[in-house]
Amino acid sequence: VLISLRRIKVNTIDFSRGVPAVKSFPMEKLAEAMQRAFEKHGATMLQYGSAMGFLPLREWIAQWQQCSVEEVLISNGSLQILDFFCEAMLNSGDTVFVESPTYDRTLTILRRRGINIVGIPLQEDGPNIEVLLESLERVHPAFFYIIPYFQNPTGITWSRAKRFQVADLARSHGFTIFEDSPYRFLRYRGMEEEAFSNIAPDRVLRISSFTKLIAAGIRVGFLLADSDIIQKVGKVAGDTYISPCFVSQAMVFEWCQADLLGAQLVHLRQLYSDRLDACLRALDEFLPDCVVARPEGGFFVSLWLPKGVSGESVRSAADSHGVVLTDGRGFFPNPEDGQNFLRLPFCALPPEDIREGVRRLAHIIHDHGV
Amino acid sequence: VLISLRRIKVNTIDFSRGVPAVKSFPMEKLAEAMQRAFEKHGATMLQYGSAMGFLPLREWIAQWQQCSVEEVLISNGSLQILDFFCEAMLNSGDTVFVESPTYDRTLTILRRRGINIVGIPLQEDGPNIEVLLESLERVHPAFFYIIPYFQNPTGITWSRAKRFQVADLARSHGFTIFEDSPYRFLRYRGMEEEAFSNIAPDRVLRISSFTKLIAAGIRVGFLLADSDIIQKVGKVAGDTYISPCFVSQAMVFEWCQADLLGAQLVHLRQLYSDRLDACLRALDEFLPDCVVARPEGGFFVSLWLPKGVSGESVRSAADSHGVVLTDGRGFFPNPEDGQNFLRLPFCALPPEDIREGVRRLAHIIHDHGV
Repeated sequence: VLISLRRIKVNTIDFSRGVPAVKSFPMEKLAEAMQRAFEKHGATMLQYGSAMGFLPLREWIAQWQQCSVEEVLISNGSLQILDFFCEAMLNSGDTVFVESPTYDRTLTILRRRGINIVGIPLQEDGPNIEVLLESLERVHPAFFYIIPYFQNPTGITWSRAKRFQVADLARSHGFTIFEDSPYRFLRYRGMEEEAFSNIAPDRVLRISSFTKLIAAGIRVGFLLADSDIIQKVGKVAGDTYISPCFVSQAMVFEWCQADLLGAQLVHLRQLYSDRLDACLRALDEFLPDCVVARPEGGFFVSLWLPKGVSGESVRSAADSHGVVLTDGRGFFPNPEDGQNFLRLPFCALPPEDIREGVRRLAHIIHDHGV
Repeated sequence: VLISLRRIKVNTIDFSRGVPAVKSFPMEKLAEAMQRAFEKHGATMLQYGSAMGFLPLREWIAQWQQCSVEEVLISNGSLQILDFFCEAMLNSGDTVFVESPTYDRTLTILRRRGINIVGIPLQEDGPNIEVLLESLERVHPAFFYIIPYFQNPTGITWSRAKRFQVADLARSHGFTIFEDSPYRFLRYRGMEEEAFSNIAPDRVLRISSFTKLIAAGIRVGFLLADSDIIQKVGKVAGDTYISPCFVSQAMVFEWCQADLLGAQLVHLRQLYSDRLDACLRALDEFLPDCVVARPEGGFFVSLWLPKGVSGESVRSAADSHGVVLTDGRGFFPNPEDGQNFLRLPFCALPPEDIREGVRRLAHIIHDHGV
């Protein structure tokens, strides 16, 4: 028993965490950037500072994203910015629209704040506009939280048409588009869709992060928004942690300043596109017609189990077949909708593991079909 | 006019921020520790990790503070831990006791959570026990938030007697003692009072931080509590920011592991005790009989304006006399109680600036007396 448990453990393929590949971290260049940060910014980065973030990095981001520095706030990762925004702008009982499915951690944050969550079903090209319209007739959302590029968990990217439709609705119904775009720069092929910052600059704010571009442990995420929103969110941030971790931010600044982001993106696209291909190929081979979308970037492919297959049985069998799966229900405002949904994060796994994992998954599914 | 404004600006003495002295930061040793962190922990510290904090540092703190690693959680500074604790354990409308005055940022966090705040007046040796008893008769507090060593803002340290009295009351009335002790290791003279972790290990939890011992910008604070509380707070932390900033935590671990904390404390005590002495001497000379307490450590001396002097006039005159003061009202649950209270943080100022600042302050006060 001990031997067989160990064997399974060693071979386990973990499809449960949407994390970057450790081998993608630019370790040496980061260490060098950190030394420069100590030399150039030592006193500043080791003292309390602005709750808005480390000024040189705010300036760098502003230039990169073509906005003013007053429109940039940097936090310890981007997730907490959503929480700060809710604290600054919403009250318990307010309504927020989300895609269904959506990022599970966003649901957790909204739920613990007592927000009324309305899920708008996601189609292959973006939200179901009919349902969105009906929902807008019923209730006014403070904002519509969306992940329009290579969505977590589905991998879906919104079409140009749906972007314009939602932008129009945001204007006519007076709601904010809260865009969460950590994967936007990780397009491995195809053309980028028109950005909301062009389509609806007056209605959109955006969070993003260096987590998926540099490394997760650095915890450097940012908000791009009107300066009055930045002020309000910054007030909440300061009241919560005085100032964010400038040590990381100064390191990221020196790394960016050395013009390393471009090459890093090339490297990531190479590394991850092979993994995306391996994932889609394996699904074509072992589980045809299951994928929700064929993403051209990001971290995730997702699928619906074939009709007649019970998600619960698949999940409970996965363990003994050496596959770790996330419970799909966590991604849905109404959890039962996700009973038969599976997210497959492919970035942290080598192509051969992805193929083997999908093969095992297919085996489990065939075992549990009706 | 331009010249005189500039002159005042250059000479301004800032008594408004309780920050460590930049010259106290062990810059070179931190840079070296960071390089070792990259070499030894690169992959771990750059990936997502446990919401409880970087394990080697948790282990180091556990050994240092003589508890188990399951009783330690590390966050991005200690302030946010209070917020997480409230999220995990309290509901809007619950009651929390605080010292009056207390740390202003704690009041902000409690207020925005809709907590009912009851202030227990602070005397030179700790809380007014009579008022505490009366308050306990009226309402049950979820916890009593205290800063029993060199309190921010007063500089007061609780006596042994009051520690035992409050520990007894915590047991008999079933409330938690929430101890915030960032200055505890910064005793410049005298003997340490008995710790609550000895007096009431069953009723106390403690937050503390490396902010005042190493540097503020690193944002590494920690919670010491029962493992079930650590689990609950860790859940909230993870739901808020996934994992804290491991880059800083790995650096702090390597720095601590190199056995540098002892020498750093000796250095800080030397540096800051001179400043404390300068502050007390200047007050004795220019504003006798005003100090609230004569602290033997920490960051703060505080005073009550002499009878007949209006705090509002002093504050509004300070600017043009080249002194920056914090509005004392921010430290009081009932702001009006702090009308004539002044906090003087002395650590970030050289002794000659402290003396000059107190001299100017005395001048303003004498100008505005009745």
